[in-house]
Amino acid sequence: MSKIQPRLPKGMRDYLPADMQRRQYVIAAITDVYQSFGFEPIQTPVLELSETLLGKYGEDAEKLIFNAQHPGGKEALSLRYDLTVPLTRYFAMYENDLPLPFKRYAIAPVWRAERPQRGRFREFYQCDADIIGIVGMEADAEAIAVTVTGIRRLGFTDFVTKINTRKLLNGIGQYAGITGDALGSLYRTIDKTDKIGLDGVREEFRANGFAEAVITRMIDLLAMSADQIGVEAGRRTITELRTRMADAPATGEALDDLEMLLGYLDDMGGLSANIGLDFTMVRGLSYYTGPIFESILRSDNPEERVGSISGGGRYDDLIGLYRKESLPTVGTSLGIERLIVIMDERGMYPANLGRTVVQALVTVFNAETRAESMRLATQLREAGLHTELYMQDKPLGKQINYADKKGVALVAVIGPDELAAGNVKLKRLADGQEIVVPRAEAGERARALLG
Amino acid sequence: MSKIQPRLPKGMRDYLPADMQRRQYVIAAITDVYQSFGFEPIQTPVLELSETLLGKYGEDAEKLIFNAQHPGGKEALSLRYDLTVPLTRYFAMYENDLPLPFKRYAIAPVWRAERPQRGRFREFYQCDADIIGIVGMEADAEAIAVTVTGIRRLGFTDFVTKINTRKLLNGIGQYAGITGDALGSLYRTIDKTDKIGLDGVREEFRANGFAEAVITRMIDLLAMSADQIGVEAGRRTITELRTRMADAPATGEALDDLEMLLGYLDDMGGLSANIGLDFTMVRGLSYYTGPIFESILRSDNPEERVGSISGGGRYDDLIGLYRKESLPTVGTSLGIERLIVIMDERGMYPANLGRTVVQALVTVFNAETRAESMRLATQLREAGLHTELYMQDKPLGKQINYADKKGVALVAVIGPDELAAGNVKLKRLADGQEIVVPRAEAGERARALLG
Repeated sequence: MSKIQPRLPKGMRDYLPADMQRRQYVIAAITDVYQSFGFEPIQTPVLELSETLLGKYGEDAEKLIFNAQHPGGKEALSLRYDLTVPLTRYFAMYENDLPLPFKRYAIAPVWRAERPQRGRFREFYQCDADIIGIVGMEADAEAIAVTVTGIRRLGFTDFVTKINTRKLLNGIGQYAGITGDALGSLYRTIDKTDKIGLDGVREEFRANGFAEAVITRMIDLLAMSADQIGVEAGRRTITELRTRMADAPATGEALDDLEMLLGYLDDMGGLSANIGLDFTMVRGLSYYTGPIFESILRSDNPEERVGSISGGGRYDDLIGLYRKESLPTVGTSLGIERLIVIMDERGMYPANLGRTVVQALVTVFNAETRAESMRLATQLREAGLHTELYMQDKPLGKQINYADKKGVALVAVIGPDELAAGNVKLKRLADGQEIVVPRAEAGERARALLG
Repeated sequence: MSKIQPRLPKGMRDYLPADMQRRQYVIAAITDVYQSFGFEPIQTPVLELSETLLGKYGEDAEKLIFNAQHPGGKEALSLRYDLTVPLTRYFAMYENDLPLPFKRYAIAPVWRAERPQRGRFREFYQCDADIIGIVGMEADAEAIAVTVTGIRRLGFTDFVTKINTRKLLNGIGQYAGITGDALGSLYRTIDKTDKIGLDGVREEFRANGFAEAVITRMIDLLAMSADQIGVEAGRRTITELRTRMADAPATGEALDDLEMLLGYLDDMGGLSANIGLDFTMVRGLSYYTGPIFESILRSDNPEERVGSISGGGRYDDLIGLYRKESLPTVGTSLGIERLIVIMDERGMYPANLGRTVVQALVTVFNAETRAESMRLATQLREAGLHTELYMQDKPLGKQINYADKKGVALVAVIGPDELAAGNVKLKRLADGQEIVVPRAEAGERARALLG
C-alpha cells in the first residue's frame, strides 16, 4: 500500500497539547460562570435531521451546511450549524421534563463550510447560554451579566457590552419616517457605524435618498450613545430620548425596556464599568425581537477592536418553530474562538499553564532502582501530582534534559544512595533547587516545591 | 409554514441536564486519572478526509462510516469512526512538535451507523489513552494501571482487567499444530469462551475438525487462567506454562513479556486485586501485536457481566500508516458509555450530584425587595454558589415549591422584615431547617448549610 500524505480537511484544525490546555482552561472558566448563574448543561447530537435545520437560517447560510450520509442510509442528515435551532427542537421534545424557565448552556462545536481565511474555520466552538420562558427584563439583565462576568473571568477589563433594542431601531425608523423595505437598508447602514463612522453613515443615508432633515435627526440620535459607558450615562440618554422622540410612540416601549434593563443591571451590582447603550449596534441575525447586546474590546490595537467577542439578544419567536406557541427567550453567546486568539496574543493564561500537563518526571536510574521509581510515581499520583515515569533506557542527564525540553517543572531521582537511605531527590528545573527528602514525605514536599 | 414534528436521527441521543451532570462527572474523573499519569490532551476535528479513514477498518466497518459534504464542496469527508486512526494521522503531521514518547488522551464522540438497538448508539464517546514510542513493557503496564485506576476512581471494585498477549495466542496455535487461516478460526472460537464456556469451545473445536489430542491440550491450557486474579497467580501460571509449552518456542517471548508486565504491575503497587491473566481473551481488532487487555465486571448480575468496560493493547504497526516507519504503541480505551449505564443502574454518583446545577434559589418577595434579592444573588455567586434568581411574579410559596420540584437544596428569602433588619433567611429544603443571618454572612452561612 503506497502511503498517502497525512492531511486535514480545509478549514479544520488539530490541537497540540499546549493548545488544548489553553482551550480547556477557557472552557472550564466559562462553564463555571454559566453554572454560577444556574444555567444547566445540555447536549444534542452533532448530526440532526436535515429537515430540522433547513429553512431556519436563510438560503446563503444553508449553502454552508455540511450534509451527512452513510452507505444505504435513508435519513437526510446534517451537521449542526449552530446551537440555537437544536435548542428549539430539544425544548419542544422534552419540555415536560424541563423546569420553566429553562436555563441552559452548551459549549460545543458547530460546522460551516465558510471560505477558509485567516482566523475563520469550518469547525469552531460556540458557547451559548439561554433563558426560555421569561418575558421580563430580568432575563435580559442576566444574559448581559453572565456575559460581562464571563469575559471578566478570563481576565479582560478593556471591553464594553453594548446594549440596544430592536424596538428602538424600529422606533428610529418611525421617527425618521421610514418603513417597509427601506427599514432593512437603514439598519444595514447603521450597522456599519463601527467601520465607516457617523460621517460615513450620513453619506450612505444621502446615497439612499433620505431627506437631509431626516438624516440630521437620525445622526443626532445615533450620536447620543457614542462610546457610552455605564448605567448613569444610559439613564441620562434615555431621559433625553423620551423628550426628543415623543413623536415616535413606538420608541416608548423600547425606552421602558432599556430603562428597566439598566435598573436591573444596576441592582445586580458591579457591572456598570463594562456596559453601555449603543444605538448604532444592530446585530445581523433577523430573529431578534427585543434587547440586543454585543461585546467589543476597547483596545488600543485596531486589530483587536474589529469584531465582537460576544453577541446575544431576545428572540421571542424562535421557540415557536417546533411548538404550538412560542415562548419568550433571551440568549448570549461568548465568542470563545476569538477570545482565545486574543488571550494567546496577550499571554493571558495562568503561569502554571505550561506546554505539558506533566508536573513531575520520575527518572529511572538503572534496572535495580526501577521498581522503587515505579512505586514513587504511584505515590506522587496519589498525592495529586501529574506524574510521568521515564520509560527509555537513557542516562540520568538525558532524562533531566527530556523533562526540561518538555516543560516539566519537577524531576524526582532515586539513585542507589537515595534507595539505600529511603530518600528521594527532588529537583525544580526552573531554578535548579534540589532537596533530598524521606520517601514518605515525597508527595507533600514535591507539591510545596511546585508552589 | 406548517410545523414539522421535532425528531432525532436514528440512534442519536439528547441529554437532559441531570444526564449531563452524570456524564460530566465521569468525564472529569477519567480526565483527572489520565492526566495524573501524564497523558496530554489533544483534539482532532470531527470531519476527516475520507482517504484518511478508508482502508483502515475493513469493509464491514467502513459501511458504517458517515460521509459528509456541503453543496459545491470538492473534498470527500467522513465523520471519524474512532480516535485511533486520527491519532496516527495527527502524530505523523506533528511529531516534530511532540515529545517522544508521546502520551495522549482524548475523550470525544465517534460515529458509526450501527443498526440501532438497546444500548447501542450511532454517536457515542470514546475515552482513549495511548503511549507512542516505547517498546518496553513499562508502557503496557502503565496502560493497564491507568485503566484499573480509572475504573476504580468511578467507584467500581468488582472488576478484573484481564491480560493476554497476541504472541501467546500465536504460540498456542503452534503448540496445537494449527497455522494459517485455521488460526483465525481458532481465535474466534477461543474468543467465545465467555459465552459458551470451555465445554462449548471444545465442541466447536471438534466441529472444526481438530484432533482430539490437540483439543485436550488446548482446553487444558485455556483452563489454566480461568477466573484468575492477581500477580502471584499469574506468575505461577507462567512458570507452569514454561514447562508445558517447552515444545512451542514461539511462546517463550510471550511468556517473557507477560512476566515482565506482571512484575511492573507489581512494582507500581496496589493493582493486584483487579488484574488477572486470561488466555481465553482474544479481542477482535486485528491490529494488536503484543499484550492485550480488557476489563469486565465480576458481577452477580449476569447482564452486567456481558461485554467489556475497557479494552486495549499493543499495536506496533499502526503508527506506520502515515509514517515511513512504525513506532511501538500501546493504548487503552475505557468503555465510558457502558460504565455510565451501569453507574446509573447502581446509583454510583456522589450524593450532591442532583437533577440541577443550581444550589440556591434567591426568591423575590415583591417589587420593593427585588433589587436586594438581585444583589444577594450576585453575592452568593461570588461566594461560589450556583445561584438562580427567581424571575416570575408568583407568591413565595410557589417559588419555594419551584425550588423543591427542581431539586434545589437551598432557598434564600428577603422579605420586608429581613430587608429592614439587613438579614437574609436561608432555608434548607431537605429538612426544612431555617436560619436568619446578617446579609454580609449570607455566602458563608449558605455554604455551611449546604454541607
